[in-house]
Amino acid sequence: MAAAIFRHCQKRDMHASALIIDEDAVQCALDNHWIVAGGSDASAVKDADIIISALYPHVFVQWVKENQQYFKSGALLSDVTGVKREVLRDINAELRSDVEFIACHPMAGKEFKGIKYADAGRFANANFIIVPTDKNTKDAVQTAHQLAEILGFTKISELTAEEHDRMIGFLSQLTHVIAVSLMNVSDNTHLVDYTGDSFRDLTRIAKINEDMWPELFILNKDNLIREINEFSDELLRFRNLLEAEDVQGMKDKMIQSTERRKKFDKS
Amino acid sequence: MAAAIFRHCQKRDMHASALIIDEDAVQCALDNHWIVAGGSDASAVKDADIIISALYPHVFVQWVKENQQYFKSGALLSDVTGVKREVLRDINAELRSDVEFIACHPMAGKEFKGIKYADAGRFANANFIIVPTDKNTKDAVQTAHQLAEILGFTKISELTAEEHDRMIGFLSQLTHVIAVSLMNVSDNTHLVDYTGDSFRDLTRIAKINEDMWPELFILNKDNLIREINEFSDELLRFRNLLEAEDVQGMKDKMIQSTERRKKFDKS
Repeated sequence: MAAAIFRHCQKRDMHASALIIDEDAVQCALDNHWIVAGGSDASAVKDADIIISALYPHVFVQWVKENQQYFKSGALLSDVTGVKREVLRDINAELRSDVEFIACHPMAGKEFKGIKYADAGRFANANFIIVPTDKNTKDAVQTAHQLAEILGFTKISELTAEEHDRMIGFLSQLTHVIAVSLMNVSDNTHLVDYTGDSFRDLTRIAKINEDMWPELFILNKDNLIREINEFSDELLRFRNLLEAEDVQGMKDKMIQSTERRKKFDKS
Repeated sequence: MAAAIFRHCQKRDMHASALIIDEDAVQCALDNHWIVAGGSDASAVKDADIIISALYPHVFVQWVKENQQYFKSGALLSDVTGVKREVLRDINAELRSDVEFIACHPMAGKEFKGIKYADAGRFANANFIIVPTDKNTKDAVQTAHQLAEILGFTKISELTAEEHDRMIGFLSQLTHVIAVSLMNVSDNTHLVDYTGDSFRDLTRIAKINEDMWPELFILNKDNLIREINEFSDELLRFRNLLEAEDVQGMKDKMIQSTERRKKFDKS
């Protein structure tokens, strides 16, 4: 994610600096002229107008605590975190009063990580969600919109933290739990020779970053558990229709799923 | 499926005839020179060396009962049916002794139907499964292999009817039940603006032919119900790990799903 942001900044002649633990990644970004400076010394943020964190949620909060003394007064802090309620609460509780946090979620993650997957085209047609609170100024929300446009996002919208986390619980987190569970039911890897696109599409996201997702799930536990339960109930309703050989009941389910899914087709 | 077969036969200079109820489809296939003759009169099969049924399972059995008097002695009957145990039992119980049935499953279905989706490229990289029984001659199995090669399939394999139906219950039928159920949990169509590739990929097959699938599910009820139950149990095991905030337990599930899913990546 961070690397793709650098590539866009380069194209728009903005000055991007990187704070990255991995020295090889810094060197790669410098060699490609995606960034003008980089390193692992947090004091490097002192001149930044906008600081974008790509850290995992808990690390993000901890990092702000330890390093906000380097932030420029009037700087804008943003993020790419996949859940928002707790992050907003914790960051706003910690943050210096002369720095503003505007929460953002560029919905363009991939099942790969690392600078070698930097792809400036990744953001086109993806959603960029801004999650303003009553603490935010109009200027900060406006800047987040501009940043999203510069990064190439065409679909930019605003949600409350509650709306965001509820939506993410269904569209993203439940789908990942389904994909992971489908791969874990049993060792079916001997079926690879018979596998078609349906199974591959359903399980693509079962390749998952195990260091990040458990934390995101726990931060949205209430929503995700409700979604898993509701999905599980629906699955068993379908099983019961099959058990009863209720052809019309199964047809009705399929007609409804077909109608709804058509609305999700890309135009 | 049938239309894509016609297009291949045309390329290989074979003489394909079509028995189709839809007169517009026949005319379209004739206009494109995909077939040399077509209509809805079953007696047209009298000169055919190979008869390939693309009928739904029960209609297929009924059609054979009513029309096998037109079959040429020594003809080979095949099909594209998605389940095999019951179809094999019923067709073999009905079929004239001088005609041989070799069951085939070209795993290249799509969520569209109709001649306008005829795509000769659809079979490349798809699986063609031949399901021989102890009633089949070596010649018939060999012919099925040749037919699959002519149609452009690169992955051709043989399974018993039991192996086939078990595999299909997991890889294809369970995945369709999951996709249909995910769309039916609740009306989430207002979330379309926030939807990314994960959700779209998982639900692509929720657009489903409601006239065909309930019949296929019932014909494989034992396997499919077992698969739904096992998947549901696994889903709830994951939910319990989340409920207990068991980070290591969730990580272990994700490491396993990532490892297994990598084996399904196309090389």
